[in-house]
Amino acid sequence: MRYTAPVKDMAFCLEHLAGLPDIARLPGYEDATPDTARAVLEECARFNQDVVAPLNATGDLQPSSWKDGVVTTTPGFKEAFRQFAEAGWQGLQHPVDFGGQGLPKSIAAACTEMLNSANLSFALCPLLSDGAIEALLTAGSKEQQQRYIPRLISGAWTGTMNLTEPQAGSDLALVRSRAVPQDGGGYRIFGQKIFITYGEHDMADNIVHLVLARLPDAPAGVKGISLFIVPKVLPDGRRNDVWCASIEHKLGIKASPTAVLVYGDGKGEVGEGAIGELIGEPNRGLEYMFIMMNAARYAVGMQGVALAERAYQKAAGYARDRVQSRPVDGSSAQSVAIVHHPDVRRMLMTMRALTEGARALALTAAGLHDVGRAHADPAQRAAHEAAYEFLVPIVKGFSTETSIEVASLGVQVHGGMGFIEETGAAQYYRDARILTIYEGTTAIQANDLVGRKTLRDGGTLALAFARRVQQTQERLQASGDPQAQTLAGQLGRAREAFEQTVAFVVANGKAEPNAVYAGSVPYLMLAGTLLAGWQMGQAWLAAGEMMAAEASFAQAKRTTAAFYGAHLLPRCAALRDAVLQGADSVMALPAEAF
Amino acid sequence: MRYTAPVKDMAFCLEHLAGLPDIARLPGYEDATPDTARAVLEECARFNQDVVAPLNATGDLQPSSWKDGVVTTTPGFKEAFRQFAEAGWQGLQHPVDFGGQGLPKSIAAACTEMLNSANLSFALCPLLSDGAIEALLTAGSKEQQQRYIPRLISGAWTGTMNLTEPQAGSDLALVRSRAVPQDGGGYRIFGQKIFITYGEHDMADNIVHLVLARLPDAPAGVKGISLFIVPKVLPDGRRNDVWCASIEHKLGIKASPTAVLVYGDGKGEVGEGAIGELIGEPNRGLEYMFIMMNAARYAVGMQGVALAERAYQKAAGYARDRVQSRPVDGSSAQSVAIVHHPDVRRMLMTMRALTEGARALALTAAGLHDVGRAHADPAQRAAHEAAYEFLVPIVKGFSTETSIEVASLGVQVHGGMGFIEETGAAQYYRDARILTIYEGTTAIQANDLVGRKTLRDGGTLALAFARRVQQTQERLQASGDPQAQTLAGQLGRAREAFEQTVAFVVANGKAEPNAVYAGSVPYLMLAGTLLAGWQMGQAWLAAGEMMAAEASFAQAKRTTAAFYGAHLLPRCAALRDAVLQGADSVMALPAEAF
Repeated sequence: MRYTAPVKDMAFCLEHLAGLPDIARLPGYEDATPDTARAVLEECARFNQDVVAPLNATGDLQPSSWKDGVVTTTPGFKEAFRQFAEAGWQGLQHPVDFGGQGLPKSIAAACTEMLNSANLSFALCPLLSDGAIEALLTAGSKEQQQRYIPRLISGAWTGTMNLTEPQAGSDLALVRSRAVPQDGGGYRIFGQKIFITYGEHDMADNIVHLVLARLPDAPAGVKGISLFIVPKVLPDGRRNDVWCASIEHKLGIKASPTAVLVYGDGKGEVGEGAIGELIGEPNRGLEYMFIMMNAARYAVGMQGVALAERAYQKAAGYARDRVQSRPVDGSSAQSVAIVHHPDVRRMLMTMRALTEGARALALTAAGLHDVGRAHADPAQRAAHEAAYEFLVPIVKGFSTETSIEVASLGVQVHGGMGFIEETGAAQYYRDARILTIYEGTTAIQANDLVGRKTLRDGGTLALAFARRVQQTQERLQASGDPQAQTLAGQLGRAREAFEQTVAFVVANGKAEPNAVYAGSVPYLMLAGTLLAGWQMGQAWLAAGEMMAAEASFAQAKRTTAAFYGAHLLPRCAALRDAVLQGADSVMALPAEAF
Repeated sequence: MRYTAPVKDMAFCLEHLAGLPDIARLPGYEDATPDTARAVLEECARFNQDVVAPLNATGDLQPSSWKDGVVTTTPGFKEAFRQFAEAGWQGLQHPVDFGGQGLPKSIAAACTEMLNSANLSFALCPLLSDGAIEALLTAGSKEQQQRYIPRLISGAWTGTMNLTEPQAGSDLALVRSRAVPQDGGGYRIFGQKIFITYGEHDMADNIVHLVLARLPDAPAGVKGISLFIVPKVLPDGRRNDVWCASIEHKLGIKASPTAVLVYGDGKGEVGEGAIGELIGEPNRGLEYMFIMMNAARYAVGMQGVALAERAYQKAAGYARDRVQSRPVDGSSAQSVAIVHHPDVRRMLMTMRALTEGARALALTAAGLHDVGRAHADPAQRAAHEAAYEFLVPIVKGFSTETSIEVASLGVQVHGGMGFIEETGAAQYYRDARILTIYEGTTAIQANDLVGRKTLRDGGTLALAFARRVQQTQERLQASGDPQAQTLAGQLGRAREAFEQTVAFVVANGKAEPNAVYAGSVPYLMLAGTLLAGWQMGQAWLAAGEMMAAEASFAQAKRTTAAFYGAHLLPRCAALRDAVLQGADSVMALPAEAF
C-alpha cells in the first residue's frame, strides 16, 4: 500500500485552522504564504512518498544491526538520509543564518508528519538533530552554534539526546554520569547512557551527543545537572571516548538503533574520558534539555498523527479491496467489499476522525507557537507562547495514545491478515507502542498538564480554551444547520465536562495531590478529546467556504466532524466521571496487594 | 516474573458468583463440590506454573518452524503436552464414558484460564482438541465418537478446525473445498485451508482435521457445506493426502503453528484426495461447526481473561520493584517504587478491575451453561442455556477487547523497558492482538449479539439481564454502606444506558439495519462493561461474608469493585451515545472517500 501524503487536509488545517495567512504577515515569516506552503508540502510529499516510505517495511525486516561497536543501518537509509539533507529538509524550521529555511513551525510540522508517516524509524534521526539544534540555539555560545548547527542542518553530522541511565528514566534527579573539569579547560565525561536513539549509526560523518552529567561540586538532584556537547569524532579527527556497547531488541521502530553508550572506557585515541564542552551555565542542563524536549515532545505528538494516518490509509485500502459477506441491509445478493459493512465503516471513521482531529489540533498548536515567536507585540508573543505550551503535553499525550488505538483498529480491519507480519498492518501496531513512552510517558505529560499548565495559573489558561470552544459551539449553533447544531450540543457537553474537571483539579491540587494526579491522564485525554473535537467543529465551519470549489472534501470533512461529535466527544463525560469519582479507589489498596 | 495462578479469586468467583454449590447438587455433577474445585484448581495451578508457564517466553523466541512439510514445535512443548494429557487435563470437562473427568464447565473454565495464562500458544492445541471433541459429541456417530474421542482425550491425537480459505474468512458462504463421494463409501477431500491452528505439529501421533467442504450436489452458500473428519494418518497407518504447505509469520502466539493445509495434492500413500468421512448429515456442517465454535468462542474469551491476568501480574511485579521519583504527595524525600505513583496505580487498578470483572462474568456464564446442561427441569435447562448463549459473544468480545487494553497498559507501566522484547511485557501486547480476531472478530460477535441474541426475542433476554443488574443495584443500595451505594448509582446509570441501547436496537433492527449494526460493537462493549460491573457488584456483596476470615482479600475485592464503578462503568453512557447518535455519520461517506 503506497503512502499518499494528505496534502489537501494539511493545507486546509494550515489555512483555515492554524492561521497561516496571519502568520505570513508576521515579521520574518513573510515568505510563508499559503501558496509557498502548498508548494513545500507537495515537494515534501513527493520526496517522502518516493524515497522514504518504501524503506519502512525494509527497516522492519532488516533492522539496524550492531557488531563490535559499529552500527549498520537498514540498507537504503544512508542514501535516503543524504538526499533528505541535501534537499534541505533538515533545516526547514531552523534559522537562515545557519543554513536553514526559516519557515514557521506550522509548515514544518506538516512536513514532519509526512516524514514520520513515511518511515517512523528513519524520521527519528532528523528529529533528534532538530532537538540538538534547538538546544544549541537556546543555550550554546555563538562559537558552539557556528561550529555545530550548520553541520547538523547540512546532515553532515547528526545529534542525539543523552538523558536516560539505567536507574534514571522518568526521574532525571538520579542521573549519575560525571563531568570532570580538565586542566587547560574542557571536561571529561564518564558514565553509561541507555535508550539513546541513533546513538550510533553510519548515516553521517559524526554524531553530536548532548549529554546530561554532574560536575564534581554539583548539588544533588535535578539542580546539579549540566549539559555537555560530546562529539563522537573530535575536530582534530580523533575518535572520542564514547562507545556503543549494544543496541536494543525492540517491539517496533526496529530500524532505529537504540544505543547503550559508554563514556570513558579509555579505549579510544584520547585516553580515559570522553572529551566534552559545557553548554551554557553549570547546573542548568535540565532546564536547557527541557526546552529541547518540549520541541521533541511536540514532534512525537506529530509522530502519533503520522502513524495514525499511515495505519488509516493501509486499512482503508484493504477495506476497499477485500470482498467478504453480503451487506446487512440486503442491498446486494453478492458479497461486497468490506468497506460497505457498518462495523468496518465505524472503525475506519474512528481512525479517520481521531487522525484528522489530532492533526488539526497539532497544527493549530504550531500556529500558536509561530505567533508566539514572531509577533511584534510582546504581550501577544507571551500569550500565544503560553497557549502553545499548554497544548504541548496534550498534543503529545493525546496524539500518541490515540495512535495506538488507531493502529490497533487498523489490524482489526484486516481480520486474520492483520496478524500476519507480511501484511504490514502489525508493524504500525508495534511501532506505535513506543510513542506514549519516549520523550516523557503519558503520565509525565499529564503531570505537566496538571502541575505547570493548570495548577500554576489556577486554571486560567485551561478555561480560556474552554471559552474558545464555547465560541465555536455558538457559531455552530448559529449556523442553523441541524448537523452543526447537533455537534454544538456534543461540544457543549464535552466542554462542561472539561470545565468541571479543571475546577476539580484546581480545587484539590494542593490539598489532595494524590487525588488529582490519580486523574491526570484521564484529564489529559479529556482535554485532548475536547480540543481535537473543537478543531473538528472549526473545520465544520471552515468547510462551508469550500463547499463550492471542493465539494467532496468539504462534505467528507463535515461528516467526519459529525462522527467525531457522536462517537468520540461522549468519551469526555466518562473521563470526567473517572477523575471526579475515581480518586479514592485508585490509591486505596496497600502496595503489597498488587 | 513467575506466573501465580489466582486460585483464590477463581474459587471466590465459582463459589459466590457462578453458583458452584448449586451446580454440585445437579445430577451428574455431584462430585463438583467447592472442595473438589479447590483441589482441582490447586493441582492445575501447580502444573501450569511449573511446567507450562516457563515455556512461554521460549516459544516467542523459538517459534514453531516449518521445513519440507514438517512442523517442529518449540523445544519442550512435546514433553509438556504429554504431561498435560497424562495428568488428565484434556478430558476435564468431557464425558467419563470416553475417559474424561466429567467436571462442569465452570471448573474447567478456570483451568482453561490458567493454561492460557501460562502459555497462550501452547494452550491452543488442547483448545482445538476440545472443539473437535465437542463437534463429535454433537454430530458424530457412536462409532466415530468411540474411535476419535478417547484418543483426543488421552492426547494421543489432537484436533483442528478447518474453516477458513483465502477467499472465505468471516464469510463461510464462500467455502470452495470439495468432497467427492467414493465408490464403496467415504469421501475424498480437495481444497486449500488457511489459518489452521496446530494444523501440523509434532506433539501427537495423529491429527484429526474437522473440515468444511461441499458435496457435489450441494446448494450454494452456507446451506451447502458439510463437515468431514480427515485424519492425518489413516487407521491402517497410511499417510493421508493432507499437507502443510507453510506456516505463517505472525505478530504473536508465535509458538502456535498456523498452517496452510492442502488437501488432495496426490503426494501421499493414498492417491489423489484426502480420505475423509462425513460427520452427521450432509449440508449441516456449518450448524455443527457453530456448536463447536460456540465452545471455542467462550474459550477465546477465557484466553482474554488469562492474558490480562498474566500481563497484570507482570506489570504489578515491575511496579513493586522499580524505584523512580518521589511521591507527588511529598510523603517521602526519597524516590519510591513506582507502585506508589498515582498514575501507575490507576493503570494497575484498571488492569486488575477489567481482569477480575471479565473473569467473574465468564465464570458466571459457565455456571449458567452447567445448569443449562444438567438441571432436571427442561424449562430450567432451556432458560439457563439461553442465558449462557446470550453471554457467549459478550464474553468473547469484551474479554478479548479489554485484554488488548490491559496488555497495552502493561507495556506502559514498564516505561521504556516495556518496549524492549527481553522484558517480556511486549509479548502479551503482541499475543493479545489475535484474540479479537480469531473464532469470529468482535464485529462477528456483535452481529450475533444484535441479530440472534437481541432482535430475535425482541430484547427479552437482554432486559432480563438488566433486571438482574437492577436487583444487585438494589441490594447494594440496601446495604447502607456508602461505597456500595455509590457503586449502586454507577451501576444504575450504566444499566439505563444499556436499556436505552437495547430499545434502540429492537426499534430499528428491521427498518434500519445499517444504523443498528453501525453500533453493534459499542453495544457489545456496553453490555460487557455493564455485566462485568454487575458481577463486581455481586462480588462486593459476597465479600461481606468473607470479611472476617479473609479480610485483605475481601477488602481488595471491594476496592476493586469501587474502582470499576468509578472508572469503567462511566464508559457505558459514552457507548450508548455512540450507538444512539452515531448511526448516520458511520455510513454517510461514499466508499470511495476512504
